[in-house]
Parts: sequence; structure tokens; C-alpha cells
Amino acid sequence: MAHSEAERRAMSRALELAARGPRSRNPQVGAVILSPGGEVLAEGWHRGAGTAHAEVDALSKLPEGGARGATAVVTLEPCNHTGLTGPCSEALLAAGVARVVYAIDDPGKTSGGGAERLRAAGVDVEAGVLADEAGAFLEPWITSFRLGRPHVTVKWAQSLDGRAAATDGTSQWITGAEARADVHRRRAEADAIVVGTGTLLADDPQLTARIDGRLAERQPVPVVIGTSRVPADAAVHRHPANEAVGGQPLVYPTHDLAAVLADLRDRGLHRVFVEGGPTLVSAFLRSGLADRLLVYVAPVLLGGPRLSLDDIGVGTIGDARRLVIDHTATLGDDVLFEARLRERRPWPGKEED
Amino acid sequence: MAHSEAERRAMSRALELAARGPRSRNPQVGAVILSPGGEVLAEGWHRGAGTAHAEVDALSKLPEGGARGATAVVTLEPCNHTGLTGPCSEALLAAGVARVVYAIDDPGKTSGGGAERLRAAGVDVEAGVLADEAGAFLEPWITSFRLGRPHVTVKWAQSLDGRAAATDGTSQWITGAEARADVHRRRAEADAIVVGTGTLLADDPQLTARIDGRLAERQPVPVVIGTSRVPADAAVHRHPANEAVGGQPLVYPTHDLAAVLADLRDRGLHRVFVEGGPTLVSAFLRSGLADRLLVYVAPVLLGGPRLSLDDIGVGTIGDARRLVIDHTATLGDDVLFEARLRERRPWPGKEED
Ligand SMILES: NC(=O)c1ccc[n+]([C@@H]2O[C@H](COP(=O)([O-])OP(=O)(O)OC[C@H]3O[C@@H](n4cnc5c(N)ncnc54)[C@H](OP(=O)(O)O)[C@@H]3O)[C@@H](O)[C@H]2O)c1
Ligand SMILES: NC(=O)c1ccc[n+]([C@@H]2O[C@H](COP(=O)([O-])OP(=O)(O)OC[C@H]3O[C@@H](n4cnc5c(N)ncnc54)[C@H](OP(=O)(O)O)[C@@H]3O)[C@@H](O)[C@H]2O)c1
Repeated sequence: MAHSEAERRAMSRALELAARGPRSRNPQVGAVILSPGGEVLAEGWHRGAGTAHAEVDALSKLPEGGARGATAVVTLEPCNHTGLTGPCSEALLAAGVARVVYAIDDPGKTSGGGAERLRAAGVDVEAGVLADEAGAFLEPWITSFRLGRPHVTVKWAQSLDGRAAATDGTSQWITGAEARADVHRRRAEADAIVVGTGTLLADDPQLTARIDGRLAERQPVPVVIGTSRVPADAAVHRHPANEAVGGQPLVYPTHDLAAVLADLRDRGLHRVFVEGGPTLVSAFLRSGLADRLLVYVAPVLLGGPRLSLDDIGVGTIGDARRLVIDHTATLGDDVLFEARLRERRPWPGKEED
Repeated sequence: MAHSEAERRAMSRALELAARGPRSRNPQVGAVILSPGGEVLAEGWHRGAGTAHAEVDALSKLPEGGARGATAVVTLEPCNHTGLTGPCSEALLAAGVARVVYAIDDPGKTSGGGAERLRAAGVDVEAGVLADEAGAFLEPWITSFRLGRPHVTVKWAQSLDGRAAATDGTSQWITGAEARADVHRRRAEADAIVVGTGTLLADDPQLTARIDGRLAERQPVPVVIGTSRVPADAAVHRHPANEAVGGQPLVYPTHDLAAVLADLRDRGLHRVFVEGGPTLVSAFLRSGLADRLLVYVAPVLLGGPRLSLDDIGVGTIGDARRLVIDHTATLGDDVLFEARLRERRPWPGKEED
């Protein structure tokens, strides 16, 4: 059975509601309950771990029996397992919902299966309504859900011979204006931008996304990793995205990158952009925690001791980290290599909820 | 006045004669003397520094007055200055030659001007006959004449992060079969192939040009630079091109690259292909003695201490050696950057004869 125009409108509304929920380890989900005639009976959305799922939130706004014979329109397949809250499939059945319309399947092995459970109980279920919009909206969450950690892009700029700076440490600008603009566009698409204390102390970077000289609308949250103290007057303290995380940049005085990523995921920062420097980039590569590499190569030779990567754990040529180059682009005089590591090490924390 | 078919044939013959001369610091030149009716009166070629130039060699085969009213067909503009031998322009005038046909201009400031001198004395002079063939034949000499030293191509293979080998020194094969085949094709076009003693001792390379597994017809002369002793059983002793240079590879126990290049030029080795390793390549770059760079970049990351370049004399970012990338090519999984250094340092030995 095809879906009605009212259901389509309700899904669009459910996506708006979903966006009201906080970014967290849990997906942002919205729901609308429609009467058999297509009238909106209730709306709901998920407010983060431990709180009601969107469907249940919506149902809770109706009196006992108010959803009998109704249609539940939800952005994500109703879950089928008992986590911190009960399974939504059971809640929908208990409420007597006659039809469920959702946008995209739940990617979880344990949480998925809600549609099947509902169908088995005689509920009319339709999937895929506004799937593209919902998919785009939830993509970062789905990816980090699949990986069991945020998606990590590691970026560096280097000379053709693999140097990050000249012998005296000067590096502005190895790459040209086009390459730098490309970096800023990508910063604006990330949820978090990460540097090590080395870069913070050497460069006092702003870590903002700037497009045509102005702050981009979307700003990644600045993250600093390392045990050295971040100076009180560091530029990063004035970052516009600090607001979203309690007014201060996220500083992790540790070298445990997995722990940092877990915390970023808990905060709903699913797309992480690692900007260096060489020590931190190498640590990400060494730990197998880089999903995408962006290597901006300038047509210059530098020689000398300032390497763009240090030790990445390759002892012998057979262990070379082979890349799949997905894309190369010419940016002014520079060349961008967009790549993935060919073998990805298994990640222990995969497939949780 | 256009040239005759007989003159064109004579030029073709003169090019064959030129090739009989030895490769040396001097150009290989051939000459044919034609009667006014187009008959071949005499042939000549240059046999190297201190011996007669081709025109004079040909004239010497005629009796007194035998060239009066004749046409001299020469592959290179007759010279106009007194070097180790007298100016050819004067010799042609003295012999009473009525017409001179040549292929390409003499590039020298001091040696050039022969055509003008001849015209001024009433000789009918035509330039440009078979200029393309002659130009291609003399190109290596012309280039090394212009540079004042051989043309130097510096090649290296590296990982994307600028490593020549993994931490334990293993490097076979960073780049793939297509890239290696490309290197061999280019070796076959070079006159000399150069390595440092470091590479010789580490790899015992053959330094031959091999195409589809077989020795190419043209083989570069192997050259080793460095003070360490070359083992008596080194593979390079069995190189097929040793014959051309007295039966042994050319070994220069020095670090003076300019002196090595001067000697190679004296031997007519005008196209030099430097294959490494990192120390020698860096020395060539540091000395400004690299005309063309071939950087084969494999899509792998290695990290670690085995750099493709060491110090190339760049202290600060403003002194970065900027490259002009003339060409990039995909060779299997690898990328070749064919480049020149943007600023070329002046070379003291320019514009001699
Ligand atoms: N070319 C480029 O793309 C680029 C980009 C950024 C920076 N840079 C340049 O890089 C230079 C700074 O280099 P850097 O390597 O010192 O900076 P870095 O990588 O930003 O910081 C290194 C520091 O990060 C901390 N850290 C956090 N997690 C770590 C882990 N898992 N393993 C090891 N260390 C970890 C350590 O600090 P603690 O001791 O505090 O724990 C370490 O000393 C600057 O000159 C900057 O300009 C270049
Ligand atoms: N990735 C590649 O494309 C590539 C290519 C070739 C080799 N390799 C690898 O590179 C390694 C060898 O590296 P390497 O750097 O030791 O070899 P190298 O550059 O071939 O040789 C270095 C030696 O050359 C001599 N030399 C001559 N002229 C010099 C000058 N102007 N300045 C300094 N030294 C000069 C010195 O030897 P003396 O002490 O004898 O005077 C020096 O130790 C091997 O493992 C090899 O497999 C890689």
C-alpha cells in the first residue's frame, strides 16, 4: 500500500521534530501520530539516552486508548529491544496502532527487527517514506553506529617529499589558498575538529571554519588532545562552537584516542576532523583510527627533519599501509589525495547500541 | 633558393656520417661536398676534440682547387671561431665553395655566426635542411652545450609520505610494475645512469635498461659516485655498456658532482639519469644540479626514518624549492610527477665551446 499525502507531510514534520533532540550517542528521531483520517493527534521526539523514544514520547501525549487504530509516522524503524527504555514495537502494539510508516531501517542487529515484530502482530507497516531526507539527516549517526565510534577524517598538508614544515619550523603556507579554502569547507561539515597540544602550543589556531573570510554558519566543536596545559588565553577558548559543549573547548589530557572518540560519540559528535599535527596524525594512523585521509600535497621540496608523519607502526615493507585513492583533485598548484587505508583493523567496540 | 633533391640526399648521408664520430663534449657532425651538378665529391665527419671539423675533413680529401664552385652540405652551421682548429667558415671560403647548405644553427655565441660570415663573403647559404632530424640527433649535445654540463634527470620512488623504504630498510617494491617499466624505458634513453656508493653497496643493482624482461638495445653507461670501494664482484662490472667506456663502469671517488658532470660531458654522456639513493639525490638537489625530476609516488604510507630526501638546503619555508609540475601520469596504482625546479641556480660553467 502506498502512503498518503498526509503521511508524507507528517514524515516531513517528524524530521523537524527529530532535529529538536540533542546530538548524542543515540539517533535523533521524531514521530507524529495521525488519526485514520490523517489528522495530527500527537508529536514526539527523542531527548537523549534514558528518555523516551520518539514514538513513546508522542503516544504519552494521548489519553488512554487515544491511539487505537491510528497511524504512527516515525523517522527511524521502531526499535525492538529493551534498552534503557522498553521496545517501541511493543508500546505501539499496546497502544493499538493500526499502521506504522517509517523512513529508514534501524541499522542495529539487536535494536532492529521492529517492523517485522509489528507486521507479525498484524500492523500494517510501510518503510522508506522520505528515506533520502531521513538518511541524509541520520547519516553521521548511522556511520558512527556502524563503526562503533565517530567517523574520523585525518587531514594533513605536506611538501611532495613529505615534510610538514621547513627545518626552522616555518610552514605558512606550504599549500595555497584553494587548498586552505577546501579545508575550511570540510571543517564546516565536521562535528568536531581535533588537534594535539603540540599544534595548539605552536600555532594557537582558531580552529574555526571560515569561508570567504567569514565564519561559516556551521562550526565544528574544537577538541584538544594531550596532557600539556592549554593556555588560558588560547584562541580556541573564543571558538563560537564552545557554547554547544558547555562554553569551553573539549580538552582531553590523555593519549588514549579510543577513549576520546567514545566520549565524542556520547556527545553526538559523529564526524571528527583531525587536523594534526604530525604526532597526533601518526597516532591516529598507528591505532587504525582513520577512516578517511585528506593529504594536501604542495609542489615544493623541503627536505629536513620536520616530517608530516613520524612512526605509524610499519616496520617492514610488507606492512606498508596501502591506500585506496578515492579521489584526487587539483587545488591551485596543490594536489589533494582523498584516500582510505586498504586494510582496516577491527574495532573492538563495534555493534553496540 | 630552395634546396635540391641531391642536397637533401647529401644531408641525409651527412647525418649518417655524423653518427660515425665519437660521442664527446664536441657535437657529432657530418659533411658532404657536392659538385655543381650534384655529384658527391667528398665526405667527412668530426672525430672529436682536436681533430678536424667535418667540413674540413671532407675538404681535405679533395685535391687543391677540387672544391671550387662546389656545395658543402653540413649537419651543423660551420663554425666561425678559432678553437683547437681554425674556423670552418674560412676554410670553406679558402676552398672556393660557392654554396653551403646546413641543417641547424650553431648554438654557441663564440662559435656561431659562420653563416653570416659566409654570406658576407658572397657564398650562397641555406639553413634548415632536414633540421628536424638533425635537431633530434644533436638535441642532447645542444642541451648540454646550453647548460654547460649534461642534462640531469633525478628520479626517486617514494611512499606518499616521502619515504624511500620501511624502517628496516626494505623497499622492494614500493612502486608497482608499471612504474618500474617506465623507469626502464627512461634508462634506455639516457647516456649515463648514476648511483651513489650507498645504493651500490646496499642493493648491488645491475643498472641496465630492461624492457619486457630483456636488455634494451640502448644501454646507459653505469656511473658510481662516492669514496667507498666498489666490490670487485659488483653486478655493475658486468654491465653491457661498460665496453663503451673502456670495459669498466665509471667510478668517481669524490663528492664533487660538478666535476663528475664535467667529465661525463667530456665523454659525450649528455643525458644523465640519477637513480639515487636519497643522499646522492639530495646532494644533486642541494647543488642545483637537477634539470628534471621524476618522482614516482606509491599510494602507501610508511612513516619511520628512511626518507626519500634528506637535507636539500632549505632552512625556512620561504626558501622551499618550488616545482613546476610539467606532467603527472598514473602508472598502475602509482602517480608519477614530472617536474622542474622553479628557480634554477646559475651554473658557472655555461657558454663555453
Ligand atoms: N602540515 C600540517 O598539516 C600541520 C597541521 C597541524 C600542525 N602542523 C605543525 O605541526 C607542529 C606541531 O607538531 P606536533 O606533532 O608536536 O603536534 P601535535 O600532533 O598537534 O601534538 C602532539 C602532542 O599531542 C599529544 N598527544 C595526544 N594524543 C597523543 C597520542 N596518542 N600519541 C602521542 N601524542 C599525543 C602529546 O602531547 P602531551 O605531551 O601534551 O600529552 C603530543 O606531544 C606545529 O609546528 C604545527 O605548525 C602542521
Ligand atoms: N626509493 C628510491 O628511489 C631509491 C633509489 C635508490 C636507492 N634507494 C635506497 O637507498 C638506500 C641507500 O641510500 P644512500 O642515501 O645511502 O645511498 P646513495 O645516495 O646511493 O649513496 C650515498 C653515498 O654517496 C656518496 N656520495 C657521492 N656524492 C656525494 C655527495 N655529493 N654528497 C654526499 N654523498 C655523496 C657517499 O659515499 P662515500 O662515503 O662512499 O663517499 C654517500 O654515502 C638503499 O637502501 C637503497 O635501496 C632508494
